[in-house]
Amino acid sequence: MTDIGVSDFWAVVPAGGVGSRLWPLSRADAPKFLIDVTSSGRSMLQQAWDRLKPVCGERFLVVTGTRYGDAVRRQLPQVPSEQILLEPSPKESMAAIGLAAALLERRDPSIVMGSFPSDHVIPSANALRSCILEAINVARTGRLAIIGITPTYATSGLGYVQFGEPINIDGAPSAHRVVSFKEKPDPDTAKSYVDSGFRWNAGMWICRVSVLLDMLAKYQPVLAGRLRTIAAEPARMGELWEDLTRIVIDDAIAIPGTSDGLVFGVPGDFAWDDVGDYSALASTLPPHPDNPNLGVLGEASSVVALDATGLVAPRSGRTIAIAGVEDIVVVDTDDVLLVTSIQHAQGVKAIVDTLRIRARDDLA
Amino acid sequence: MTDIGVSDFWAVVPAGGVGSRLWPLSRADAPKFLIDVTSSGRSMLQQAWDRLKPVCGERFLVVTGTRYGDAVRRQLPQVPSEQILLEPSPKESMAAIGLAAALLERRDPSIVMGSFPSDHVIPSANALRSCILEAINVARTGRLAIIGITPTYATSGLGYVQFGEPINIDGAPSAHRVVSFKEKPDPDTAKSYVDSGFRWNAGMWICRVSVLLDMLAKYQPVLAGRLRTIAAEPARMGELWEDLTRIVIDDAIAIPGTSDGLVFGVPGDFAWDDVGDYSALASTLPPHPDNPNLGVLGEASSVVALDATGLVAPRSGRTIAIAGVEDIVVVDTDDVLLVTSIQHAQGVKAIVDTLRIRARDDLA
Repeated sequence: MTDIGVSDFWAVVPAGGVGSRLWPLSRADAPKFLIDVTSSGRSMLQQAWDRLKPVCGERFLVVTGTRYGDAVRRQLPQVPSEQILLEPSPKESMAAIGLAAALLERRDPSIVMGSFPSDHVIPSANALRSCILEAINVARTGRLAIIGITPTYATSGLGYVQFGEPINIDGAPSAHRVVSFKEKPDPDTAKSYVDSGFRWNAGMWICRVSVLLDMLAKYQPVLAGRLRTIAAEPARMGELWEDLTRIVIDDAIAIPGTSDGLVFGVPGDFAWDDVGDYSALASTLPPHPDNPNLGVLGEASSVVALDATGLVAPRSGRTIAIAGVEDIVVVDTDDVLLVTSIQHAQGVKAIVDTLRIRARDDLA
Repeated sequence: MTDIGVSDFWAVVPAGGVGSRLWPLSRADAPKFLIDVTSSGRSMLQQAWDRLKPVCGERFLVVTGTRYGDAVRRQLPQVPSEQILLEPSPKESMAAIGLAAALLERRDPSIVMGSFPSDHVIPSANALRSCILEAINVARTGRLAIIGITPTYATSGLGYVQFGEPINIDGAPSAHRVVSFKEKPDPDTAKSYVDSGFRWNAGMWICRVSVLLDMLAKYQPVLAGRLRTIAAEPARMGELWEDLTRIVIDDAIAIPGTSDGLVFGVPGDFAWDDVGDYSALASTLPPHPDNPNLGVLGEASSVVALDATGLVAPRSGRTIAIAGVEDIVVVDTDDVLLVTSIQHAQGVKAIVDTLRIRARDDLA
């Protein structure tokens, strides 16, 4: 690995999800990938860039919504404008990733691309990059590679991938065949998955761009044809985009590709978190000085806490007093205050839905 | 009872306590009696005036701290300035009530005064006034009368008064002898008190002013002498006030007076609440439209609540979202936010103490 990374490798980062479960930190106009959810000093998207740059160099593509284009350009001034692709409307992950693949294919069909979510936390970027290097070598053999994360607990909030036997690929000593993909399970099933050695599907796909598009052409020929047409004739984007098939990459190519023996996996043994809700976020935060089980996202000196556990986000500058509450979630922003519980973290989305129903999109 | 009330009767309202357990609604510079804790449209002190006016007419005295004088005058413009007595420093209830008694004694020793706390909630003022009229008739026989509230539950947060046999007094058909006073008990003892028919001591005392001061002269001669001196020579207030004995009226005259057979009681069967903490306040509030067990102190339309019980006070104008929390207390003000639980309501005072320790008196 050098400063300019792996010369035939491009990183692609689809950046579209709002992350409603982190409302009101995240908003429709300030989605999770654009904000510094973990108080690291960098937005989630900037952290993704920081992690990938050593392996992709300047070869970094973002696929985002039109409304977020300006913000992405501001946050990533290093990335040339033509490498920030704007989707006229969200069409699920296959369209976003496929668009990037089709554009890269016109540059050079042998390019290996890796698609990585824009809003996850990976404390050890070195460990991730080692996996990517193996996955690139898998991809060079004409397969679709996935990095499968070693689970640290059983969760029903993620999909799983089942690895099979090891396979001998030069430069990919830990590669395995992939046997199956599993959707988000119920809690009991999640436990059986983890007990069986299944891995978390964190949405990290590595593939030669021509291979990816050829797989797509086989399983979703209409979508593949339209994406290749858009790449060849960018002026037709407006005409063709609206009718693109809405499908996730798992369903579009990974699952059928697995049946055809085309999908291999590299185990990711590093710490990883999708920070999908306040329960996940709480575990990433520094503790309050007087309350070791109260995570603080912001200025700890703004928080007076007595016998409190959970998470507090002082973001309005006001003083917050918390006393005698367990597993509480308090997010204090300038225009809105959220009070909920760690156990109820997944229910935050319902609040955002309620705000929309009440025509309070200004707060959603 | 006429519009101008009972002509020999004066109402006295000591207004001094901050009500720390209702922080941050109450503050050192905005004590409970000056604020509209129950969203009634009137401060607690104004509510006291509203309740008492029909029986005392213009004969209404407030005893408050120097720092609150201006605010009291603004809230009660009907009350002449010379009827708002300013204590140079707080010296407990006997000094406050005794000062009022001594000043009234110089006007007419036969005046009957009734002392009533400034920060309690009594929804049925008519029922209170019926009791006062009986108590006035008791006082005219030369006794100290107390109104003893029929408890609605066993609480360790209040003192109790034990009534004995009924006594036959003209115009006071429900009067009883008082047998004893009990300090705030532990919870088990509180239950036994309620089971035994003891009543809440709500600090409502009615007595002829000369009788009150003569009792005080017997049990606390130094304090009585100083108060009568101050009343005779108001210019000596500054010189004499600082060394006044700090003692509550219960200890100063009610308890020793009971031993001497001088204390009688009138039962108060009306709803009463000292709104001493958020637990008490929660039970007085209108419910959130979507959450019958969530009391709202303020604009319900500012609160989006899903599966929430407890109390929420939207006082900053911001939107508050509450979801999946039980018995929560959320008080949202412009400069500070409190999150605690109904069960922890008594612990709010500890937060205020902590702020003082941290030199954040500006918030306390």
